[in-house]
Amino acid sequence: MEKQKLSSLFAPKSIAIVGASDKEGKVGTAITENVLKLGYQGEIFLVNPSYEKLHGKECHKSLSEIEQNVDVAVVVVPAKFVLDVVRESADKVKNFVIISAGFSEVGKDGVQREGELALLAKQKGLNVLGPNCLGFISPSSSLNASFAVGMPEKGNIAFVSQSGALLVAALDIAKKEGLKFSSLVSVGNKMQLSEIELMEELGDDENTKVIGMYLEGIKDGKRFIEVASKVSQKKPIVILKAGKTEKSQRAISSHTGALSGSDEIIDAVFEKTGVIRADNLEDFFEILEIISIVDVPKNEKVAVITNAGGAGVLATDAFKGKNIKLADFSEMVKSKLRENLPEEGSVENPIDVLGDAAENRYAYALENIVDEEIGTALCILTPQEKTPVGKVAEVIMDFKNKSDKVVAAAFIGGELVEEAILKMKAANIPTFAFPERAVEILDCYYKWSQRKGSHFGAEEVVKSSERTEIVGKMISRAKEEGKKALRFDDAAKVMALYGINAIESHYFKQGDEIAQEMKYPVVAKIDSDKVLHKTDQKALILDLKNRQELSEALEDLWSRFPGEEILVQPMLSKGTELILGINRDEVFGPIVVAGLGGIYTEVFKMVDFFIPPMSRNEIVNKLRESKIGFLFAGARGLKEFDVEEVAEIISSAMAFAEEIPEAREFDINPMFVYNTDEKAIAVDVKIIF
Amino acid sequence: MEKQKLSSLFAPKSIAIVGASDKEGKVGTAITENVLKLGYQGEIFLVNPSYEKLHGKECHKSLSEIEQNVDVAVVVVPAKFVLDVVRESADKVKNFVIISAGFSEVGKDGVQREGELALLAKQKGLNVLGPNCLGFISPSSSLNASFAVGMPEKGNIAFVSQSGALLVAALDIAKKEGLKFSSLVSVGNKMQLSEIELMEELGDDENTKVIGMYLEGIKDGKRFIEVASKVSQKKPIVILKAGKTEKSQRAISSHTGALSGSDEIIDAVFEKTGVIRADNLEDFFEILEIISIVDVPKNEKVAVITNAGGAGVLATDAFKGKNIKLADFSEMVKSKLRENLPEEGSVENPIDVLGDAAENRYAYALENIVDEEIGTALCILTPQEKTPVGKVAEVIMDFKNKSDKVVAAAFIGGELVEEAILKMKAANIPTFAFPERAVEILDCYYKWSQRKGSHFGAEEVVKSSERTEIVGKMISRAKEEGKKALRFDDAAKVMALYGINAIESHYFKQGDEIAQEMKYPVVAKIDSDKVLHKTDQKALILDLKNRQELSEALEDLWSRFPGEEILVQPMLSKGTELILGINRDEVFGPIVVAGLGGIYTEVFKMVDFFIPPMSRNEIVNKLRESKIGFLFAGARGLKEFDVEEVAEIISSAMAFAEEIPEAREFDINPMFVYNTDEKAIAVDVKIIF
Repeated sequence: MEKQKLSSLFAPKSIAIVGASDKEGKVGTAITENVLKLGYQGEIFLVNPSYEKLHGKECHKSLSEIEQNVDVAVVVVPAKFVLDVVRESADKVKNFVIISAGFSEVGKDGVQREGELALLAKQKGLNVLGPNCLGFISPSSSLNASFAVGMPEKGNIAFVSQSGALLVAALDIAKKEGLKFSSLVSVGNKMQLSEIELMEELGDDENTKVIGMYLEGIKDGKRFIEVASKVSQKKPIVILKAGKTEKSQRAISSHTGALSGSDEIIDAVFEKTGVIRADNLEDFFEILEIISIVDVPKNEKVAVITNAGGAGVLATDAFKGKNIKLADFSEMVKSKLRENLPEEGSVENPIDVLGDAAENRYAYALENIVDEEIGTALCILTPQEKTPVGKVAEVIMDFKNKSDKVVAAAFIGGELVEEAILKMKAANIPTFAFPERAVEILDCYYKWSQRKGSHFGAEEVVKSSERTEIVGKMISRAKEEGKKALRFDDAAKVMALYGINAIESHYFKQGDEIAQEMKYPVVAKIDSDKVLHKTDQKALILDLKNRQELSEALEDLWSRFPGEEILVQPMLSKGTELILGINRDEVFGPIVVAGLGGIYTEVFKMVDFFIPPMSRNEIVNKLRESKIGFLFAGARGLKEFDVEEVAEIISSAMAFAEEIPEAREFDINPMFVYNTDEKAIAVDVKIIF
Repeated sequence: MEKQKLSSLFAPKSIAIVGASDKEGKVGTAITENVLKLGYQGEIFLVNPSYEKLHGKECHKSLSEIEQNVDVAVVVVPAKFVLDVVRESADKVKNFVIISAGFSEVGKDGVQREGELALLAKQKGLNVLGPNCLGFISPSSSLNASFAVGMPEKGNIAFVSQSGALLVAALDIAKKEGLKFSSLVSVGNKMQLSEIELMEELGDDENTKVIGMYLEGIKDGKRFIEVASKVSQKKPIVILKAGKTEKSQRAISSHTGALSGSDEIIDAVFEKTGVIRADNLEDFFEILEIISIVDVPKNEKVAVITNAGGAGVLATDAFKGKNIKLADFSEMVKSKLRENLPEEGSVENPIDVLGDAAENRYAYALENIVDEEIGTALCILTPQEKTPVGKVAEVIMDFKNKSDKVVAAAFIGGELVEEAILKMKAANIPTFAFPERAVEILDCYYKWSQRKGSHFGAEEVVKSSERTEIVGKMISRAKEEGKKALRFDDAAKVMALYGINAIESHYFKQGDEIAQEMKYPVVAKIDSDKVLHKTDQKALILDLKNRQELSEALEDLWSRFPGEEILVQPMLSKGTELILGINRDEVFGPIVVAGLGGIYTEVFKMVDFFIPPMSRNEIVNKLRESKIGFLFAGARGLKEFDVEEVAEIISSAMAFAEEIPEAREFDINPMFVYNTDEKAIAVDVKIIF
């Protein structure tokens, strides 16, 4: 059956609680009270076979006993009864919130139970949130369909959490910090409704300005990329993704059975899709808060005004490596500022209005930057003896009302600044305890606005069934021969199918003649996985200048490695070494890894991740920002390399990875690239199956 | 005259205020009221020629009118009168706090005035704090000799600030966060008493457990290293050093005229001296707070207990790259935990006591890790429906009293956790708003304890006057010849004096004979600064295998570069390329920069800073932790290089830098090192004067 729209789940006209109760300490009681007492205006049905009445209201034996259709059923009965509840009412109820634990998070039986539930949901076209979740809260409907306490203020932040506990904590933090929500959703085991469906729904939700997610795993990498890319063009998505270290990934799988991708890949995916990654809980809430209350700065330029030189210096430090920048003021602005500020103050950015400044100096400074092309004004204050803290706050609030800039405040102190901060918060001025955080958090928001449009619309890779078939046959044949990898000459043929130029190769068995056409100089080496360290074992002889030298080298090698095949290749002029390979990520599928090759590759890991799908243009942009970006910049006297050429190779590697899933591993190491007329060339290619 | 001890400045028996007042809004009034009204028990003299009486107390015309000696005079008269005040009373008063501005921070006249004051102080053996400072506060003497408002609680944090405004803000933050101080000192222009003298004094101060400093510049790099190294062995020094970016360094010099060293060098200096560097104001105060209230963890192992799996995962993430680690519990501990915790909980670290945990589960978990070799227990709590927040706090406080571990808490939330946090703070339990910060801050403290003993006792470099003289003569001669750098053969001779092996060299002028003894293969190149890109211009010919090839190459070169000298050197087997040079830092003097050479040196800056003085042992340790540390680890199939050999070269470069100040620039690039029997060899050496 066709799936219901999610809006009927989160803004239901009627709701049933299956497992409603009034016994103290029971989860069913908490939910029942939340639904009944926090102002929900829809119809409410309580269901529990043990009661006739509950909370002074009729109590139904079962969902089927209710005559009309019900928009949402919240199910809080023991796991073993859940399937029956859903099955018997699936024609009447299309949205289920399964609070009950005892599913895939508890081992084999639970996994089976969850499988059956998923199948049922699919057959009947149901929306199912959970199981093993806390429920959801929709402040705009005054509906708390969860067992978390209270009703947060109605606002524009949507919070989706894979941890019920963090959702509860968020509610409490929200109250203190003034965060306001459009909805809060606990996704539990994400059996059916995961971050992806919710992202899609919330992307279209007019009440939601920013989507915040706490995630431990991502369910379907490819869909995530698709949906996150689309939604983050409309509104910011802020994700706190737990599980950065190996240890915490272990902790997660014992926790909810989520599949964690490698953290560097997550970084690359978030960057690609325009998702804002929060580094920790503190940043997470602060980023949500600021996006919630202000529009994105209209440009990267920030003016800082301070009554403490030191704090100005600290703010300046914080701009290092950021997308937002300290603005350079025009001479006109500086001379205007000079007119009314004391001589010892600074009219450069940060503007130092000095420790004895009254509110008028802040006002003066702010007014004089109005006409400058500035996106953000950050006002720093330390409560000096003469500082009229409250009045400075008034000046800032006035300025905000008549300006199109983001106006933020960092009032450094305790009691002396507390009241002013609360006032500014109430007036939707972003406030920060320290200037460095202001810069940090504003930067995240601005960076999103810059990236969101820059990385979408990838052309779909056109799969070529012809080459897929050819390569498939080569691999099958090699497998039949008991091989685990393609021989170099075959791998080179595969590369040719993908437009990648690989070095010429000639194989010699003992007794083979050297062809007259052979061009010199060449390199001769034993081509056997038995010989790992070719240089150490002298299994590699360089710079053979003519037929005689090659002939002697072949004899020498066979004398030491009898029976082995010898690979003879041209001696190339050494280019810049790149490496390039694919990483088949369990969540995100095949990813191209490319970077600087050479002896230190492993030590310094100068590689980047290229995550399909990517248009040629996107690859070029990513390459320019990558660790090997310097090669294409032509800086420091280095003639630039051809970025289009490298982009094409990466694009080909992506196509190869998509088309040839049998190739478990694939790498080109080294790939020589040149900043001359020479074409890039793959010197070694491994295709392992 | 001999200098006074600083203790008489900060714990005076008598104090005079020169420029005392009772006019509202005057700085002199603020100071007078602070000294009079906040409980100071010593004798107080007010000085101002315009008054007979002030605040109901006798007012003196001048310091000389006071008969007895006075421990400290706080001077708050206009700059132009300050010298007279000090001069006329310098026999009676030995400690001055010059609040007055109008000295080196305001240009030429001020610089001269400050110079005269400094000279006078030296002649008369005075201690002078300031000028252009806020004063100081000694809570243990109930003395506020500053114009900042209030009296902070007496405690063990000493705070030295180069910004008066931040000191004022700190006072206000302190009140909110419960920070307690042994002293607060505003150093102003640091004419005489700088961070160095104060560090030394506070290092010996029994009331001070931790020294916190906000610095914009460091006055005397060499002394700083000496004193900070010594003091940080006794107690932690936490420094917030502003001026990381070029822009903020500009802001500073317009601000107090401080000389900023490059930020990477500051990092290296702090690491060397065991100073804890705070990244921002927030960290700064949190680090001070935690050191103030707990002893350093006795080992690196941390146990984490949480009632929210997600928060545990976030804490686990935070351990990435830290010195403190999540402990691995013994099987015994795990089986004990298993006994009384619910099955769905986790007995691995982090211990997950689950969302429905009452305080007894926290108690149970804590008790069972008592015997484990664990340095820190971090208790994370989210306020779930059934969580008895206050009782969990009690459990934590009880455990702290009977345990030798550091016990810290991260209660995530707002109102629901507020009271418990205040209680724990009052019981000296370090509390954090988020688990990630707990890990971050605890790590700083632990790292200090590990490093403090590891990097001192450098042998003094024994200067060799003999080689200094020889090199001096070579440089003089070269200068007379109008050269700006030593020719390679001379530079190689200098290297030999310092025990550094440089490549052999033979110079050929047109017409010179090739000696029969010449060994092949060799390289021939034009040795002229006129030819910059030797490879591009074919001014370099490699791999000349015999006399004839060399002879032809020489002719070829002269045909294209007539009259130039040609340098002929052996063709070396290519080693791993290092670069090594000196950087004469304006603050810290000559510093050796060493790292990985090769084509990407400039792009990736794989270098470290070696800051003298350093013992051979210290250099070895630093090398092992450096960016080229992997060379000495022998990991990844790479045979290790000789760390002692590289350390000796660095040590020699240090000696060279110290002995030959005429050498403005010095670098060896490349230095070939080998992991075979071959000796390291300098392939090119530049000594520029």
